[in-house]
Amino acid sequence: MNVYRYEENPLVSPGDVTAHRDDFEVIGAFNAGITEYNGEVIMLLRVAERPISNDPAIVKAPVLDPETGELTVMELNKEDPAFDFSDPRTISRAGNPDSFVYLTSLSYLRIARSIDGRHFTIDDQPFIFPSNELESFGIEDPRITKIEDTYYIYYSAVSPVGVGESLVSTKDWEHIEHMGMIFAPENKDVLIFPEKINGKYFALHRPVPKSTGAPEIWIAESDNLRYWGNHKYLIGLREGMWDNGRIGGGAVPIKTEAGWLELYHGASSDNRYCMGAVLLDLNNPAKVLARSEKPILEPEAEYEVNGFFGNVVFSCGALVEGDVVKMYYGAADDSMACAELSLKEILNSLTCEKGVKIPGLIN
Amino acid sequence: MNVYRYEENPLVSPGDVTAHRDDFEVIGAFNAGITEYNGEVIMLLRVAERPISNDPAIVKAPVLDPETGELTVMELNKEDPAFDFSDPRTISRAGNPDSFVYLTSLSYLRIARSIDGRHFTIDDQPFIFPSNELESFGIEDPRITKIEDTYYIYYSAVSPVGVGESLVSTKDWEHIEHMGMIFAPENKDVLIFPEKINGKYFALHRPVPKSTGAPEIWIAESDNLRYWGNHKYLIGLREGMWDNGRIGGGAVPIKTEAGWLELYHGASSDNRYCMGAVLLDLNNPAKVLARSEKPILEPEAEYEVNGFFGNVVFSCGALVEGDVVKMYYGAADDSMACAELSLKEILNSLTCEKGVKIPGLIN
Repeated sequence: MNVYRYEENPLVSPGDVTAHRDDFEVIGAFNAGITEYNGEVIMLLRVAERPISNDPAIVKAPVLDPETGELTVMELNKEDPAFDFSDPRTISRAGNPDSFVYLTSLSYLRIARSIDGRHFTIDDQPFIFPSNELESFGIEDPRITKIEDTYYIYYSAVSPVGVGESLVSTKDWEHIEHMGMIFAPENKDVLIFPEKINGKYFALHRPVPKSTGAPEIWIAESDNLRYWGNHKYLIGLREGMWDNGRIGGGAVPIKTEAGWLELYHGASSDNRYCMGAVLLDLNNPAKVLARSEKPILEPEAEYEVNGFFGNVVFSCGALVEGDVVKMYYGAADDSMACAELSLKEILNSLTCEKGVKIPGLIN
Repeated sequence: MNVYRYEENPLVSPGDVTAHRDDFEVIGAFNAGITEYNGEVIMLLRVAERPISNDPAIVKAPVLDPETGELTVMELNKEDPAFDFSDPRTISRAGNPDSFVYLTSLSYLRIARSIDGRHFTIDDQPFIFPSNELESFGIEDPRITKIEDTYYIYYSAVSPVGVGESLVSTKDWEHIEHMGMIFAPENKDVLIFPEKINGKYFALHRPVPKSTGAPEIWIAESDNLRYWGNHKYLIGLREGMWDNGRIGGGAVPIKTEAGWLELYHGASSDNRYCMGAVLLDLNNPAKVLARSEKPILEPEAEYEVNGFFGNVVFSCGALVEGDVVKMYYGAADDSMACAELSLKEILNSLTCEKGVKIPGLIN
């Protein structure tokens, strides 16, 4: 796979972003949704900020009070045996490291704008800040689907009661309408298709079940984008492969002659995040046609390998111009980068499902 | 709380049900949905069957092949160190007892009918049998909501990819229409309200999040019963109380002058399942008015304390006649029982939320 990483990478780094208040510091500007508006590329950054701490014995955890809209900063002692501080992103109860009780940072969404798609100017203020009880730990990993004149923005809403996916919409990138939580916990990595298919809207989503099952990709349908159902299992983990740990949708599905092309992320069981692709039937996106045996993008550049959480490439959006896929992606859970790939080359790299033949696809 | 348990309890036991094939045995006839049709009480039993095993060293696990509709019986050696057989209901991978890879029985839905609500005749054949890839481990714990002339039946659909909630409908208790999975994994204990409220359908549901949060009760809305959204957190676990382990909706919400009365189950952290009640605002069921400090029904009778999984009372449906609530419930995860309670007494036993005053309620 020929991958052209921009010379300007990383395009946005935490140092480029001013914290929204003086006693916080920006530790991540990553996993941005991507779209175009008024001739500009809009990069809707997930900005992660943490309370500045001068005492290494204290870990701080920011929590929104949904009643007042104010942030409360919890202070926990690193020596407190009741908690586990081994993951820099989360605070867990001792003995239960897979489930967190606090996050060490709070994420919100902020706009960066660019004429050329390489040089970005970051807005002074947050665009969407956590605002209700389902967002008290922050909002993360936005995606943007434009349908007619409306931009639908959806993101992980994180709070002590779970991680679900919420939807807002905007027409002018100034005013937003909240449309509620569209996928109940535990769910993230939702991708709404950019047009109706056979009269229905479709979305990929990624439940994280507890009693049985794994973090895998499902598909649902809707007739109004607010309410979703007819949930079906779409693709799963693959033992021994690059996506054997967890998978989830990445960019908004791209319509091609061969089918809907979804650029998705897969993590190995040792948490190396790559991007791959899956091709879905144009008329029935619940039908899988072909899938990447190997990643189309792997963490290799310095800014992808090293960072807040290294060995991660994680796309939440791409722009397509002819054969060129400009895949924007979060690198190492702290900054934003972009790589160009050939749409044809991605399609030709896929391996068809048993019994499927697609004219023009080699495998 | 005055509780009148029927003298005939348990009303249905596993021994009353013939297995659907000779090489299986019925181990449970419990957690039934309840409704009335053509002058009869319909008890839609969850029947759990397991393959008969003559070799105590072998544990069998039934799995539906969704392609053929046939059951495959897996045979696992009890000495196999790769698996954990400590829970009689499930088979887990060693070292991961909280997540199962097989069930030891397969559940399906079967009708029992009664004129007096006490003496039931069980149909010869299953009414709804697992029929697709999301049901390959079985279907469980049905509830029934009648809206106009249609009975909506919804149940936990269990498969290796997770436990979600699926919906079917019937008008005549002979033909059913499948309406797809309405709540994605992990979710169960869905309760659809029996009428629209301010133009929307509502349902309680019970996600089981993994990364953060607990098995607690949420509420969602819909305009067609197939697609659901605007998910909101409703009520949670209460530390130190009878419902500090897991909670979930029980019977279809009962409309009263004081509000929507939901009879829900709560389990303590040591897995003792009781029934309690919560009262929701008539016009806005996302608003909690009052809740039980103490259970309204606790496992006390012999058939509730001892059984396949003892110390469980678990209602999936009730019939209301004037002030009498006939609460049907699964006992000890193997049989069905019924108890009558006074609606007024339940309402008067509730403790109002801070700031809420309800005329006629004492607390």
